[in-house]
Amino acid sequence: MTFEVNGSRLLQDLKDLAKIGNVGKGGSRLALSDEDMTTRRWLRDRMTEAGLVTSIDGIGNVFGYTPRADRHLLVGSHTDTVPMGGWLDGALGVMCALEIARAFMAAGQPGEVGVAIVSFADEEGTLASLLGSRLFAGAIRFEDVATATDPTGRILGEERKRVGLEGVEIARIDPKRHVGYLEIHIEQGPVLEADGTTIGIVTDIVGIGRCRVTFHGRADHAGTTPMNARADAAQALYGFATEFRNFMRREGGEGSVFNLGGARIEPGAFNVVADRAELLVEYRNASDAVIDRIEEAIATLSREAARDAGVSVTIEPAGRESPAAMSPSMIEQLARAAQRLQISARTMASGAGHDAMSLASLVPSGMLFIPSIDGRSHAPEEDSKPEDIVAGLRVLAEAVSGVLEDATKPQPTLKIVP
Amino acid sequence: MTFEVNGSRLLQDLKDLAKIGNVGKGGSRLALSDEDMTTRRWLRDRMTEAGLVTSIDGIGNVFGYTPRADRHLLVGSHTDTVPMGGWLDGALGVMCALEIARAFMAAGQPGEVGVAIVSFADEEGTLASLLGSRLFAGAIRFEDVATATDPTGRILGEERKRVGLEGVEIARIDPKRHVGYLEIHIEQGPVLEADGTTIGIVTDIVGIGRCRVTFHGRADHAGTTPMNARADAAQALYGFATEFRNFMRREGGEGSVFNLGGARIEPGAFNVVADRAELLVEYRNASDAVIDRIEEAIATLSREAARDAGVSVTIEPAGRESPAAMSPSMIEQLARAAQRLQISARTMASGAGHDAMSLASLVPSGMLFIPSIDGRSHAPEEDSKPEDIVAGLRVLAEAVSGVLEDATKPQPTLKIVP
Repeated sequence: MTFEVNGSRLLQDLKDLAKIGNVGKGGSRLALSDEDMTTRRWLRDRMTEAGLVTSIDGIGNVFGYTPRADRHLLVGSHTDTVPMGGWLDGALGVMCALEIARAFMAAGQPGEVGVAIVSFADEEGTLASLLGSRLFAGAIRFEDVATATDPTGRILGEERKRVGLEGVEIARIDPKRHVGYLEIHIEQGPVLEADGTTIGIVTDIVGIGRCRVTFHGRADHAGTTPMNARADAAQALYGFATEFRNFMRREGGEGSVFNLGGARIEPGAFNVVADRAELLVEYRNASDAVIDRIEEAIATLSREAARDAGVSVTIEPAGRESPAAMSPSMIEQLARAAQRLQISARTMASGAGHDAMSLASLVPSGMLFIPSIDGRSHAPEEDSKPEDIVAGLRVLAEAVSGVLEDATKPQPTLKIVP
Repeated sequence: MTFEVNGSRLLQDLKDLAKIGNVGKGGSRLALSDEDMTTRRWLRDRMTEAGLVTSIDGIGNVFGYTPRADRHLLVGSHTDTVPMGGWLDGALGVMCALEIARAFMAAGQPGEVGVAIVSFADEEGTLASLLGSRLFAGAIRFEDVATATDPTGRILGEERKRVGLEGVEIARIDPKRHVGYLEIHIEQGPVLEADGTTIGIVTDIVGIGRCRVTFHGRADHAGTTPMNARADAAQALYGFATEFRNFMRREGGEGSVFNLGGARIEPGAFNVVADRAELLVEYRNASDAVIDRIEEAIATLSREAARDAGVSVTIEPAGRESPAAMSPSMIEQLARAAQRLQISARTMASGAGHDAMSLASLVPSGMLFIPSIDGRSHAPEEDSKPEDIVAGLRVLAEAVSGVLEDATKPQPTLKIVP
């Protein structure tokens, strides 16, 4: 089966969606904000117009099922944004899904398996990371996160009530009903652009570890206290940061990335030796074992840096997400689709988290990327070339078609790629 | 001449003064606050009771002159504090001066030269560093600093008006009238205590250089941006901090101390590569040439760290104070005084700035230190042993006596110590 997707209609849909919460070239649709809910109702109305059976569940996940089938392939992403984000990010995946569902409807809903669009709630983690997809997957319960807050003090449970979702059931995935999950997203990095490749087929979504490393020293007068009589928490922080970088360069593991993106030195004056120095440490790899090894190195190196500076150290875990391998069958479907359409493609790991992480252990899941101009995202400058957006739509539609065909066969016989 | 100073009376004076602005074991008498001005009027009243000719000038400097002489030796320090400072700091020097003036009065004002007590305004630099003594020395004009603010937003010019000092003349030093300046202070460091010595005779007050080193990079997604495609401002900061420490250890100059006591990384998130990283750098040495060399190293090393991280760097000077050598005649007077009283003494540099810095180039100036318990200061735990306080008073009184005697001679014949 082949679906006649309409690239111009997709681009117009994306522009229409971008008007909600728009400010200048970017905009904000923070989870459970008025702009976010307006977007979700707008999306529901578009899906109803397309002939789908629609619903918004008790956390704001929006669903649109093609009406005839009992089993569906989930296709989607999310429509919420970071503060002053760009116009593509998750919106691309949701609008592509809408366009594919329309084409599927126009083709007369062929086969036994339908298409289901999903826009997950709070993928960005404004209130809780991957919130909608983790609830849908049953990975967390709402009670576990009800008291989560955002930087402005909004409380998840109260926002849910405010927008009228309290008491509404939160949908759950059913592997008998949902045959898989496909998601298209912008790369959010410079690899495809530098490579001159149009499609990135995701093999793994990397795992993430985060911790706060805090050194505890003693505040002293920085003029009158001899250097060797100090317990300088800042010295330990700078020393640890340097040694951790050296470790990661030498033996941090293939494909690892890390960031030391925040530091707070207290009291923070020219003339007072720091008594407290806190460093934010983040590290990502596609292997849990490598992340474990990095965490062991953080413990060892921070203790050494503390000892050198005559201070103590505490490490506070601040989150750990396991890597998620994409399904070999979905990787194969995406590779075959790109090949059939003669659109250049390569495999790659995703350094960013996505809703597909939540579902990958439950149903066959796959993701594809299109190039981000200058690698930028989560900012008003976020953009992709129109021809890349349309190429992504076409590869996704072709892969959906392949999955639906195979799922309709009594016994799928997909070749497994290692 | 010998003055009968009373140690118990001094300790009681210090305890009485400490009640103003007192909170728990410490207290706050911030420059030009109500507590500061209450202290200054209290001091003026104590000096008037002692028979001195008193005044408070247009910036809050308090003076008390013994009435008979035309020439005076200035003795004093300051009564303002840092936020939640300790009970001694500058108060020690002012109260010792009061006790010595009383003893001088009780002795019948012998000789041709009198004693003048001074409590300088805002030594701590709440609004402007060494404010009162620099105005008294003519090193700055009030217009130059009238718009200075403190961290709470108070503006110097407005606070001066608020406490009723606007329009009141600011006193100026007159080297014909003022034969010299002596100041006793707590060490604010651990050297005397570790040494088991009671008196530190200051040879030099070190110079201070300060700058803000700011690295300018690019914010990127910390998961999707390959390590070698980043312009990480935080990496440059940590790298510079480490290399600067190495430089200072190897070739920072005899007696140099430094502090990297503040860093601000922006935007400061786990998952965003830093686009801006600012480091506070402070360095002290008794030689201007050494401070120059340190500043050259900062320029070179910060450029190298910026280049390694693919970012740019700017350096913003944030203050430079030249070292001040104490007068050889005053060093000699203090050494002779300690020897006569058989109180242990050693020479040392002062790593902290003091009002004596402002006056040293205009009149012969000298300083002595007493031990700080655990080297602590600028905190409620700041303390010194009562016997060390009294020993300091006695050495200072003996040195004042020596200076007054020599100043009365037609031609002083002090031996000069190199």
